[in-house]
Amino acid sequence: MSRLDSFIRRLEAQRACLDQAARLIGELDGDVLELGLGNGRTYDHLRQLFPDRKIYVCERRIAAHPDCVPPAELLMLGDMRDTLQKARELLEGRVALAHLDPATGDVAASRALAAEVAPLIVPLLRPGGVLVSEPAIAWQGLSAMALPGGLAPGRYNLYRFVSCQSSA
Amino acid sequence: MSRLDSFIRRLEAQRACLDQAARLIGELDGDVLELGLGNGRTYDHLRQLFPDRKIYVCERRIAAHPDCVPPAELLMLGDMRDTLQKARELLEGRVALAHLDPATGDVAASRALAAEVAPLIVPLLRPGGVLVSEPAIAWQGLSAMALPGGLAPGRYNLYRFVSCQSSA
Repeated sequence: MSRLDSFIRRLEAQRACLDQAARLIGELDGDVLELGLGNGRTYDHLRQLFPDRKIYVCERRIAAHPDCVPPAELLMLGDMRDTLQKARELLEGRVALAHLDPATGDVAASRALAAEVAPLIVPLLRPGGVLVSEPAIAWQGLSAMALPGGLAPGRYNLYRFVSCQSSA
Repeated sequence: MSRLDSFIRRLEAQRACLDQAARLIGELDGDVLELGLGNGRTYDHLRQLFPDRKIYVCERRIAAHPDCVPPAELLMLGDMRDTLQKARELLEGRVALAHLDPATGDVAASRALAAEVAPLIVPLLRPGGVLVSEPAIAWQGLSAMALPGGLAPGRYNLYRFVSCQSSA
């Protein structure tokens, strides 16, 4: 399998998971949170899936197609380890779908970032909300779901947030 | 159709055309010429399709995955409008497959570049050789072929070089 093959497979899995997530949260109010804008392709897909929801975007530096730049009031510029903490007051318990795909090209770095930001993302989710992520994330309250369309487990990752009785 | 959809569709078309080109030149000796390395994904695919052929690569500046950088002796660094002219002595009539995909993100710029380099690429092709290109190219001796797998015409482009009786 070439890098071209695996890239196509990854994009197809990403799209299938986002489309599935849209079905899963069809009846659930709430915002969308895109963690990483990149060139804006996935943001554009989210915009089409969710024309009536606010889509907040965390990004370090804008490098997207000009027509894929979110409105300023929905953009959280900076390191997401900082901006997600600041976003908590605004977004706690309000996010119906979050999508995390650091796509650093460095598997270890992506995993490390995901482990760092998972505890910042989960409190933003509504009960019943969905987290779509690559890489995989293990965190209290996140329940892994089967992928759509016969995708092999782990190709991408789809979680439902099941509200926990907090021990805090 | 989102930018994610159209990007996936484009990559799938690219791969299908390269795979088809590999079948078309199966019996034809000759080198491969990749015009633009980018991140090296397509080069990696070509490497897998053609493990026994030389794959020459034109690129302005290397920005590929470290394991997708061609060997120095097959790399033509610089503006391809210059390097292709210099390559003529080495490669004239020796290339069985050339692949052009400037992927500048700017359709007009890609078309303009393709129009400029077409006259530099075609003399390198062997009779019966194949040019896979996005954007489309119109040039003497290039015969457009049907795309594989039911791809709509123009989604990507596949040409066979039919040697012409030169009027020069």
